[in-house]
Amino acid sequence: MPTLGPLTMLDRSSARRHDAEWMLAKAADPATRYLMLIERRIAIVADEARTTATLRHFSHRDIVAFGLADHPTSFLGLDAEGHAYFALDITEHRARVVPGGPFVLKPYVDLRSLALAGQLGRDELSLAGIARALAEWHRTHRCCGHCGSQTDIKDGGWRRKCWSCGQEHFPRTDPVVIMLVTNGDDCLIAREPRFEGTMHSTLAGFLEPGETIEATVRREVKEEVGLTIGEVTYQESQPWPFPHSLMIGCRAEALDRELTLDPKEIAEARWVGRDELRSMLEGRHPEGIIVPGRHAIAYKLLTAFVEGAR
Amino acid sequence: MPTLGPLTMLDRSSARRHDAEWMLAKAADPATRYLMLIERRIAIVADEARTTATLRHFSHRDIVAFGLADHPTSFLGLDAEGHAYFALDITEHRARVVPGGPFVLKPYVDLRSLALAGQLGRDELSLAGIARALAEWHRTHRCCGHCGSQTDIKDGGWRRKCWSCGQEHFPRTDPVVIMLVTNGDDCLIAREPRFEGTMHSTLAGFLEPGETIEATVRREVKEEVGLTIGEVTYQESQPWPFPHSLMIGCRAEALDRELTLDPKEIAEARWVGRDELRSMLEGRHPEGIIVPGRHAIAYKLLTAFVEGAR
Repeated sequence: MPTLGPLTMLDRSSARRHDAEWMLAKAADPATRYLMLIERRIAIVADEARTTATLRHFSHRDIVAFGLADHPTSFLGLDAEGHAYFALDITEHRARVVPGGPFVLKPYVDLRSLALAGQLGRDELSLAGIARALAEWHRTHRCCGHCGSQTDIKDGGWRRKCWSCGQEHFPRTDPVVIMLVTNGDDCLIAREPRFEGTMHSTLAGFLEPGETIEATVRREVKEEVGLTIGEVTYQESQPWPFPHSLMIGCRAEALDRELTLDPKEIAEARWVGRDELRSMLEGRHPEGIIVPGRHAIAYKLLTAFVEGAR
Repeated sequence: MPTLGPLTMLDRSSARRHDAEWMLAKAADPATRYLMLIERRIAIVADEARTTATLRHFSHRDIVAFGLADHPTSFLGLDAEGHAYFALDITEHRARVVPGGPFVLKPYVDLRSLALAGQLGRDELSLAGIARALAEWHRTHRCCGHCGSQTDIKDGGWRRKCWSCGQEHFPRTDPVVIMLVTNGDDCLIAREPRFEGTMHSTLAGFLEPGETIEATVRREVKEEVGLTIGEVTYQESQPWPFPHSLMIGCRAEALDRELTLDPKEIAEARWVGRDELRSMLEGRHPEGIIVPGRHAIAYKLLTAFVEGAR
């Protein structure tokens, strides 16, 4: 396990979210840090070579100067030093209105690319992920699914309530199973049609109503590559805010090896042994096959297999 | 593990859901079985004493006779014999319109009570749970959260699409962690303020955006009873369609024993050993404390502890 930094220990203070006075005081606190998103792209500070980056922090004073003091925010939590973090997701139009304002303070980057490139540290990625997932949820839940009326933001951005019918709405997280299929000393890697170039990864799919984690693993493997799964073992989980998933990482032992691909889901799949997989993880595979980088849970599933862990 | 019956092996035929012709043929097939819900309460056939029950099946002919042939349905899947299952959730008003129709074919029961009473077998409970979760999702997603317009049902009830802005919506499943907190040879049981009588259970809580399963377990235990958790071990998962959750069952080892309760969440909590817990599971606790029945994942977590499994 990697060492946990202060932000992984984020105190979400969920019991304080409904306390409007406390929230207003935190919002106006000069020590509070605001993350800025323009249409779900997040503001960072990058070095010249763009090899590393940090999240750009704005102060309450900046927010007031930008004319955004009344804009809805999401309260993310407190870090180990007690600094509060909020996030704002604004439109490009709004961002361009203020001369010298948020729009000129570039770059704003797609968090997924940032995650895949490994530019941002684990803790900042985690914090930005919460901001990203909440921003997307707010964007797609401005109206009430029950009656179509407008919803109001409550609890520091963690609840929306319909002003008309009273229905309450909470942030959505979609469970996704992601599984390394194994058979003896081999494991299965696959390329989805949407993957670029020679990228291969593990299989994955959304959990449906009425399914257990294990049943979803069995169904998805059967549907995508035609294999029957015996034992399923949970390994670890990871939030994946694109747009708002929980990746549930498992090992799944196949009872057979013959592949029948669903071409809509899987373009290519192959069994590989530990040595060949290691060459992919290390970027020296003879056919140039690459696998996801260290911020993806697929990387951890593949690495655990190479290292022989059960 | 209990033996899996034919319905646990439900073939969801997810790749056929978008095939309107196939779906129409299945809907009209005389062998197809319809489950009927009136405002989320499901039709069953119960014996005189109400100790056991089965789901009431309606045929396509019944549906036509009730004037419900055009009513939206949800396709649940095919059983091992190839019978298709659909579910309809209708209003009480609609149900009362037809003389001799769905309304008189009682009883319609709350699935949660049915589950807790153990009246329905595991497979039928699972099937009814899918119907219940989809019905609730349709009820609360008739309109588009993005723009407020009406959404159309697609893919046999597994997708809704906004006719106005085009946003797509998929069934929602909320991940919930449920954890047996242990400390050496004792485990923690707690009573939430909403529990009736002497009912006690394990702790539980919703996973939030940006959290892993393990982080949610640690946060919820800290918030609810003030304990710090060391190791977290995944045990098993279970769908819980009230309204649409995935229960992720874990064991969580506490590093301390002193309880500080959040009175809004927990009214009472206590450490109990295996013998005392066994007396609760067997309904012979001297203080009359009871715990959830065999259909609840809490029961499985408690039973595994009593049996000494890790």
